[in-house]
Formats: sequence, structure tokens, C-alpha cells
Amino acid sequence: MSKLSFEFPDGSVKEFEQGVTVEDVAKSIAVSLAKKAVAGKIDGQMYGINEPLANGGKIEIITKDSDDGLKVLRQTASQLLKAALADQFVGIEFGESTSDEDGFFVDTDKKDTQVSADELKPLEDKMRKMVKNNVSIERKVLSKEDALKQVDGDPYQAKLVNKLANGDEVVFYQIGDYLSLGEGVVLPSAKDVKEFKLLSVAGAYWEGKSSNPMLQRIFATAFYKKADLEADLKRRQEAKERDHRVIGNKLDLFFVDPKVGAGLAYWMPNGATVRRVIERYIVDKELANGYQHVITPVLMNLDAYKTSGHWAHYREDMFPPMDMGDGEQLELRPMNCPSHIQIFKHHIRSYRELPMRIAELGMMHRYEKSGALSGLQRVREMTLNDGHTFLAIEQIKEEFKRILHLMVEVYKDFDIENYHFRLSYRDPKNTEKYFDDDEMWNKSQSMLKGAMDELGLDYVEAEGEAAFYGPKLDVQTYTAMGNEETLSTIQLDFMLPERFDLHYVGEDGKEHRPVMVHRGLVSTMERFVAYLIEVYKGAFPTWLAPHQVKVIPVSMDKHGEYAKKVNNKLTALGIRSSVDSRNEKMGYLIRDAQTNKVPYTLVVGDDEASSDKVSVRRYGEDNSTELSINDFVKNIQEDISNYSRKNK
Amino acid sequence: MSKLSFEFPDGSVKEFEQGVTVEDVAKSIAVSLAKKAVAGKIDGQMYGINEPLANGGKIEIITKDSDDGLKVLRQTASQLLKAALADQFVGIEFGESTSDEDGFFVDTDKKDTQVSADELKPLEDKMRKMVKNNVSIERKVLSKEDALKQVDGDPYQAKLVNKLANGDEVVFYQIGDYLSLGEGVVLPSAKDVKEFKLLSVAGAYWEGKSSNPMLQRIFATAFYKKADLEADLKRRQEAKERDHRVIGNKLDLFFVDPKVGAGLAYWMPNGATVRRVIERYIVDKELANGYQHVITPVLMNLDAYKTSGHWAHYREDMFPPMDMGDGEQLELRPMNCPSHIQIFKHHIRSYRELPMRIAELGMMHRYEKSGALSGLQRVREMTLNDGHTFLAIEQIKEEFKRILHLMVEVYKDFDIENYHFRLSYRDPKNTEKYFDDDEMWNKSQSMLKGAMDELGLDYVEAEGEAAFYGPKLDVQTYTAMGNEETLSTIQLDFMLPERFDLHYVGEDGKEHRPVMVHRGLVSTMERFVAYLIEVYKGAFPTWLAPHQVKVIPVSMDKHGEYAKKVNNKLTALGIRSSVDSRNEKMGYLIRDAQTNKVPYTLVVGDDEASSDKVSVRRYGEDNSTELSINDFVKNIQEDISNYSRKNK
Repeated sequence: MSKLSFEFPDGSVKEFEQGVTVEDVAKSIAVSLAKKAVAGKIDGQMYGINEPLANGGKIEIITKDSDDGLKVLRQTASQLLKAALADQFVGIEFGESTSDEDGFFVDTDKKDTQVSADELKPLEDKMRKMVKNNVSIERKVLSKEDALKQVDGDPYQAKLVNKLANGDEVVFYQIGDYLSLGEGVVLPSAKDVKEFKLLSVAGAYWEGKSSNPMLQRIFATAFYKKADLEADLKRRQEAKERDHRVIGNKLDLFFVDPKVGAGLAYWMPNGATVRRVIERYIVDKELANGYQHVITPVLMNLDAYKTSGHWAHYREDMFPPMDMGDGEQLELRPMNCPSHIQIFKHHIRSYRELPMRIAELGMMHRYEKSGALSGLQRVREMTLNDGHTFLAIEQIKEEFKRILHLMVEVYKDFDIENYHFRLSYRDPKNTEKYFDDDEMWNKSQSMLKGAMDELGLDYVEAEGEAAFYGPKLDVQTYTAMGNEETLSTIQLDFMLPERFDLHYVGEDGKEHRPVMVHRGLVSTMERFVAYLIEVYKGAFPTWLAPHQVKVIPVSMDKHGEYAKKVNNKLTALGIRSSVDSRNEKMGYLIRDAQTNKVPYTLVVGDDEASSDKVSVRRYGEDNSTELSINDFVKNIQEDISNYSRKNK
Repeated sequence: MSKLSFEFPDGSVKEFEQGVTVEDVAKSIAVSLAKKAVAGKIDGQMYGINEPLANGGKIEIITKDSDDGLKVLRQTASQLLKAALADQFVGIEFGESTSDEDGFFVDTDKKDTQVSADELKPLEDKMRKMVKNNVSIERKVLSKEDALKQVDGDPYQAKLVNKLANGDEVVFYQIGDYLSLGEGVVLPSAKDVKEFKLLSVAGAYWEGKSSNPMLQRIFATAFYKKADLEADLKRRQEAKERDHRVIGNKLDLFFVDPKVGAGLAYWMPNGATVRRVIERYIVDKELANGYQHVITPVLMNLDAYKTSGHWAHYREDMFPPMDMGDGEQLELRPMNCPSHIQIFKHHIRSYRELPMRIAELGMMHRYEKSGALSGLQRVREMTLNDGHTFLAIEQIKEEFKRILHLMVEVYKDFDIENYHFRLSYRDPKNTEKYFDDDEMWNKSQSMLKGAMDELGLDYVEAEGEAAFYGPKLDVQTYTAMGNEETLSTIQLDFMLPERFDLHYVGEDGKEHRPVMVHRGLVSTMERFVAYLIEVYKGAFPTWLAPHQVKVIPVSMDKHGEYAKKVNNKLTALGIRSSVDSRNEKMGYLIRDAQTNKVPYTLVVGDDEASSDKVSVRRYGEDNSTELSINDFVKNIQEDISNYSRKNK
């Protein structure tokens, strides 16, 4: 028999006998390496540490401290979890088990009932017992026929056997009594799986398709070191505390209920207040900056989206058209541009009117897959802070700068700092995805790039990320969950003015074709509020807070009247204030105001009532200050007019 | 041959020979009567003045001064118009010709082209020539077979022949060369048709069905007396000047374009400004009155409308559902109640929270037939100033009074005076239309009536006008066109809380069923703005005016800077002001500001610039007043804060 030849990362080559294992190879280099080794990679394919090798190639020893090493640990943990589940629930069926950089999960189907969060603890205990007993995990290779017999009665596993089979060979792992279908390389025993945690349970469709049965996915994670697990759990807890869905629920801001409509947000009074303040702010800001606000229908004749190209390029993201009779097909608009084009076209336009800035809080509908929906961040009905400028080609650079200037002003008012610019170009090879006009693309892309360079702003360039009608500048930020989100966008469009045959009368008396700029300053109200909730961790600055002031009388009987007097004075000035008249201990009421992140708590007792004062406690502070009512009013009004800037 | 016996309105009976005419009968009473007579009515059926009569009966002589007499004149005029059209346009086809209390019209189909407004004058001239020549109008009776031959090639007339045939007899009128299908009794000659006017042309579907071809309808009117025609034309002109569609177009407030969506309004910047001011006013008013504003989706799972009963009782007014996959059917909401019920149901509610007032500017969609659509008054997409109170039964009367109080306050702010109350009850016999629960109906109807009586308000009662779920109080008013409209509504509902199984925890710790009150203060934004346009004839009071101030420099070169300074001061205070910098004569600019009904025109020249003053001209006034800038600001701010009340 010929020997196996392995080439190491440093380029050296060594020969070994047939049937050598990764562990043997590691030992041949250094005993310390063999101790850290958990698997091997030969020509990019993973092998278990004790697996007899039949072929040579480029070899890499996978150690505990590498990403791949972590994946092997987590894959092992997922096998232990399957074994624990099989032991705990007779007849349970298994979907996929996967491990990655975020942890691992096992999909299950218990048929009548579902695995609940309460059952995670006993499962964890079972797993710990296997670890303590250092249960061995023995690799077995079955023929496909035997493998199918082994998983008989579990349709998911049968499908997975067919998917995972390598020729006629299917890998299983013997873990105690349980013979588990292998879905990746694992450790030879349970002993290293000490630092793990079962995290949560949630529904997940089999194969990710919503037409398939819903399985129960058990999320978990595992590390080699205790400190790493603890740090990860802490990070998860922090993200959860910042998660706009969690805070949205706690502060009663909004809810989404798939029973009455997936991806359709209900804004509770608190959330609607935040949104209303933002809406009024942004409309006033735009009016002061030369935008004309309009209100246009959420429905439009489908023909308009055929003209615009949306129906051809964007149909899968659109709602189904409605047949209205009279030959009319109406479509819930996925974008506002064709609507604003109607506004432009309604009159003959002169060059004197350009740049003409049309803005709207425009409601739109997009068909997101139900699996992609998430709180306010990913919804099917959304209201965009939309704007379209119709302008002459020579006005592009000036308008682009003007929009950027406005954008930065708005960001300052909301105290948004953590963002970066991304310039998106077309992929010139993908002629199907992008409007086919080389000159247009080259011209417009270089105009945007030129303006950014002139303004001296940093940006990244992304080929193949443009809209189908033109290049764009996006302002990117991150959610608590670490997903990248677009907060603002400026997009050039030479195509729609063509398609809708737009023109204006120039100084020369002749017709000219305008250019369109699409822009959103703070994206949709849904996404923006979701983002702000996470930025502020629910502690909205005073100008945005649903409840700005809570007045707490020391005794409702004795100081109720004075509390109401203070409150009336504030509400008459448009300040969102109320008296907490519940019959509870003062300490409880103060804590409750803090829990609800009310910016100002005013406690009023004998001293305050007799001197027209209030005892002011700012959110997040332990001390309170005595102020005259008038001074407090002055303070809070200044706070409100400062927007978010004081509240870092 | 037997004689004919006629009974007169005074009860007397007279006998006449066979073949006697209405004219003969009239003469037998008085020559003066015969002179005024234009037709007769025997047992309710109309006969021409010269038509030989074959049967007796109760007879009535129709004179010029009666409604029927006017109808005969207009029917005659419509025949002359048909003759003129047939002469003018070879091969023209005719739909219906009808006369009524509002005038008359003839439907036409010219195939390739349409009758245009420009062609009305030549047609009128042709008709006047016939009148001048006293063309005779000879009644001819054809067999159905001959009649169909006569109208051969005109499918509309063929259908009308079949409809109008009396047994085998079809009446035609010979007018000069033209043999015209008769559609009612006419005068024997053209001579009395002196005072007529062709008014306008508009599309109208054949038989009123939108699936049929669109014909051109020529609207016209006619009177016996010149003074009557003149008064009518003046009235029409005034209604037209008040018509919100005409003003909406003139002041560039909104438009509707069936090509992009029938019944879907586009609010231009001017109209959107008016709407925005109203929206902010009403939201702030409601917040100050204990309402909690929410924002809920325009879409909802169809199941909710099955639960609510809308799908069973209201389906024909709803948009077609959309199939979203995943077994979900989404519906554009026709009403906001089920949405606000979701808000109520989202938490366990306590008696302490009642009455709980949920309000929203809620967008809804209703499928109005295309023929019923009209400007902003009748649309398919609308935003309702909606509110729902959830309350205990014993709180009904107090809440009802509270809503009425708020309503009257709002009416005062808009200076609305011309309205009346209507209490609508069910028709107890119509068990199909109304929710079947006698006790509920009797109880709730008597509660509303009791409250109205206690408040001492006048109202009319309308049986069979209630909503299917409960009785209601409507506030009714009239449009410029004389149509009755509902401005506000308060509706009791014992049914939806049942259907959605709503409850709150009472003071006794047990679950109780709340009652719902639906209410709209100013109806939909669309209908309310349409109404206000007509009330104000487009001259919006300052607080609502799209443009509040126009600053006009005597010379842009010399006084432009000062004009801008004045303007900047005003806009910084949130006043909607602009400088008219066009290179036009001052007189023209002032007239233009008045045409656009701008409340304040400020002219600034040398005198003003040197003394920090402005020359103020109020809309509709001829004189102007010199004021310091500060005094003007004080004036206009007071004007704005007074709402509409100063501007009668």
C-alpha cells in the first residue's frame, strides 16, 4: 500500500502510513499541538481527530482556539442535545442540527406538544450527566439502506440521510444507547462540552419554507472556556435589553400580531406619541428647507408600475394587485416615486420651479417573507420619510450637497453618531438586474462620487448594490442584534423621467428632461423608531418621550390638589405630564416612573406645596433638586428645544 | 260611438266626442286656460295638447306654470337638440334623452370623436333657428317593425324602441327633415322653446353601467320665462363657484385622475397644507380631551371582518381581499373599529381605565361605484377622524354629552353653523339588515334620545337609517350642489364587544362586557376639506390658508431686500409667507394674491422700508393700512389663534 503524503501550512511535506489519524499527525509535530487539536482539515474537508485517513493532501490541524474548533465543539454539543431529547421524549423527530459562529441549534418535532422553555433545564441536566460520565461518541458508517432503516418513521431524518449521504455512506454517532445521524465532525467524547447553555425555543419552518411544517428550534451555545461562555451570555443579555421588540413591549410602544396580520404594526398610544413628534419635526424641518409636502394615495393603477419598471423588476416584493372591475387593477404602492411624478406632471413646469422638492410621509407596502419580519424593523406596511427632487442635470451636485447637509442636521438633533456612508454602483455585468444604459450609469456614478469627494466625506463603494434605476448613497448603521440597516438614502434616477416622459420648459422656451433624486432622511417611521429605541435603550430624550413628566404627591389626600395644579400648568404648555394618583407607596411610584423611563419625576409634599416648588428627579439620577415651578418649566422647555443633544 | 267622460279636479264631470284633444277640453272651460295649457294628464298618464283622445278618466290640464309643464317644454327642447345634432353630425347615435326638474340632457355617440364644449354654440344657433321658424313637431305613430327600420344602425335607439313601445306602437316626432324617437310628451311646435341654454358636456355610461360604452351627455336647461332662465343660470354659476372641485382646481388644492386611480385624491402642496393644519388641530384637541391617539394598519386579516360582521353586511362596499400565501387573506379596512378593538384587547383592562378613548386619523378604503365618485366628497381612499370609546353601560350618557360638547367646540373653531342633528334608528321590521336583538336596540335608542332631550337639542328621527350594529346620531349639512352630507357621527355599539368577546375587570374583580361608542368629529379629511372649501368659497381663514402672507416689493431691485427681511421674520415665526419676486406690475401681483385668496398682502416700498412698516391689505378689502412689522405680527398671530371666528 502506498503512503499518504501531507503538505503542511508552512509548505513542508511529510509521509504517513494509511489509516493514520489527525491526532497521530499532530503528535508527530508536537505533543502540545496534539493536546489542542480537535479535528483536521485536508484539502478543505473536515475530519474527526480519531478518524483513520485514506487520502493525503494539504492538511491543517484544527485546534480549540480556532473558529473551526469552536464549531466542532458546538456540533458535538448538538449531538448530545439530540441524545438527551431522544431519551427525554420517546418518538421525537429531528430536523436539522447546525453549529456556527453564533452557537448551535437542533430542530425538533414532538407532534402533539412542543418543547417548552421549561424543559430546557432538565435537558441541560441530562447533557451535563453525559459530560460528567465522559460518554464516548463513536463514529459509525452505515450504508444508505441501513441508514434509512435506522431513521425509519422520521420523515425529516430520512430526507437528511439522502442529503448527507456520501455515495452509499452515511455517518452516524453512537452516544450511549442513541445512534444519531451525523451532520458534521464531532469530538470523540463528551468531556470537553462543559461550558454550554440552552438559550431559548422558537418556531422554525422545516427547510425554511413557510409552506412546510413548523418545527421547534432549540437555540444554544457552547465554548471551551467558562469565561468565553459568560462573556457571550452577558453580550446576549445586553442585546436583549436593547432589542427594540423587548423594550417596545415593556414600554407599551407597539405590537405586531400575526393573527391579525403578519408584519403589520399597531402603535400603542406611547409609540404613536413618539412617532407623531418625529413626524411633525421632520415635516417642519423639510418645509423650512424648501420641500413642498403632499399627500398621495397608497393605491395606484398597476399600469403605473408597469411604466415605472417596478412590476418587471420588483414584483416579488409587491402585494397582489386588486381587480376593481371596469378593467382597473389597483396596486398597493411599493414606492412613492410614481405618485410624486403625478404631482410633477399635473402642471406644465418651468425651469424657474426647479429644483422642485416634493416630500411626503408616504405609506407603502412591501411583501417581505414572513420569516424575515421582525418587530418594527422588518414590516409589510411602512411610512417612508420620502422626498423627490426634480431638477436640471446641472443642479445635481448642489442638490446632493444640500440634502447631505440637511441629513447631518437631522442626525445631530437625534444625536446619531454611529453611521457610515456607502456608495452603491451597478454590477456592469448584470444586465438583467440593471437598467441598460452605460452612459447614464457612468455619468451618474461619477457625479455622486465627485460630490462626496468634494465634501471630503469618507465612504465605502459597493458594486452591484445599486437600485435598478440608478446609483445611490446609503447611510448605514447597526441594530442591537448586529444587523446592518440603512437609515438614509439618496438615489439618482435618470430612468423614471424617461419612462414617464417628464419635461420642463427651459429658459430657452424648449422642453428638457429633468433628473430625479429620491431621498429618505430618516427612512421609514417603523425602522427609525426601532433604531431610536435601541440607540436610547428606551430612555427617550425629553422631546421624544411619550410621558415627559410624572407628578407624584407624597400623599394624594394632602397634596393631590397641588399636584394637579402643577400638572395643569405643564399640560397647558403642551408638556406631556400626568399625576400618578394611585394609592401606592411613594417609593414604588418613583421606581415605577424610572422603570418607564420618564425623563422628569416631580415629587410634591408639604414643603413644595407651601412654596410653589417641585422636587425634581431626572431619569437615571439618584438625587433630586428643589426648583420653583417656573424654573422647572424653563428647564424642561430648554431641554425639549435642545432635542436629543443634552441627553448623551 | 260612445262619448268620452272626463272628471275634473273639482269633481265635476263632462262628456266629449271621441277624438277630442286636451286643447279642446281646456277651451271648453276657459280660453285663458287653453292659452296656458301645454299638455294633459288622464288617470296619471301624459298626453300632448293636440293628441286625439280615445279614453276618458280623471283629467288634469297641464299648464306652463306647473312642474309637469316645465318638463314638457324641456322634453321638447331635447327633441330640438336631437334634430340639431342629427343635422350637424351625420351618423351620430343617440342614447337617452331625459327632462326633469333640473333641466334636460341628450346622450350621444359620435364614435371617432366626441361632442366638445366648443360645439354647443353652433348647436344652440341651429335650435334658435328652428324656434324662430316656429318649426312644427308632428307626432307620428309607427309600428315596431317600422320603428326598428327607422333607427336601423343605431344600437342604442333600437334598444330604446323596444323599451318605449306601447304594444306595437312607437311614437316618433317629425321635426323638419328629422324623424326623432319620442321619449315623452312635447309641445306641438318649437315656438315656446325660446329660453334655453346648452350647459356642458360630460361622459355618461350607456344605461348607467360602467361595463357599457361611455356616451357624451349634453346637459341643458329651458324655461318659459327669460327671468327664470337667468335666475337659474345665476344659481348654477354660484354653485359652480362654490363647487369644491372647481375651487380645488383653481387654488391648486388637489386633483383626482381616473387614469391612475378612480376616487383616489392627490393632495397638492396647497391642499396638503390645509389638511395638515386641520389634522394637527384635531389631534391636539383630542389629546387635550382625554383621547389616546394610536396608529394602526390599513390592512387586516379578513377573518377580523368576518368576526365583526362587516364581511357579511358590508362586503359590496369593501375592496377585494388579497391572498398573501400562508393561508392569509388581507383586506384593506373599510372601518377602523376592529383595529381599535385590537388595541383594547392587547392588555387586560380595568374599570379604572374606562371610559377609554382611542383615536386615530385612520385611513380606510371603500369601494364606491365609479359613477358615485366626486372630487374629495366621494372617494375610495379616505382618512377618518375616528375615535372609539370603550366604556361601562352606566357611563354612556355622560360620554355622549362629552362628545357633543367637544363637537360643538370644534364647529365653533371652524365657524360651522348650518347643520342639524339626525337620530337614526333601525327599522324593526327589517331583521335582515339589522343585528337581531330587540332589547339592545330599544335600550340604546332610548339612551341616545334621552341624552339629546336632556341637552335640549333639536333633532329629527329617521327610522331604518341606523348602522347594522346600533343607533346613531348624525350631524347633517349640505354641499354647494345641494346634497346632504354627514359631518359628524356618534354611534352606539353593543354588538362588536360581543363579537370580539371584549371585557374589563370591574371593581368587583369580575369580568364585564364594555360598550363601544364610534365617533367622528369632522368626518374624513377628504369630505371635511371639500365641505370647508365650499363654506369658505376657497377663502380660507388665516389659520388654514395655504399661503397666509404674500410680500410684494414695489420694485424688486429697490425693495427686494426689505421684502425678504419682512418675510424671514414671518417664516421664522411659523407663518406661511413668501415674497412675490416675479418681474410683473405691482397691480398684477396684488390682484394675483387676491385671486389666490391670500389673507394678507403686504406691499413694501420706500416709505415702508425706511420706517420698518408694511402696507397691509386684507383679502377682500380695497383699502390697505400702514402697520409696523411688530404690530402686523401681533395682528396675524391673534388672527391665527382665533381660528375661523373672525372671518365671517
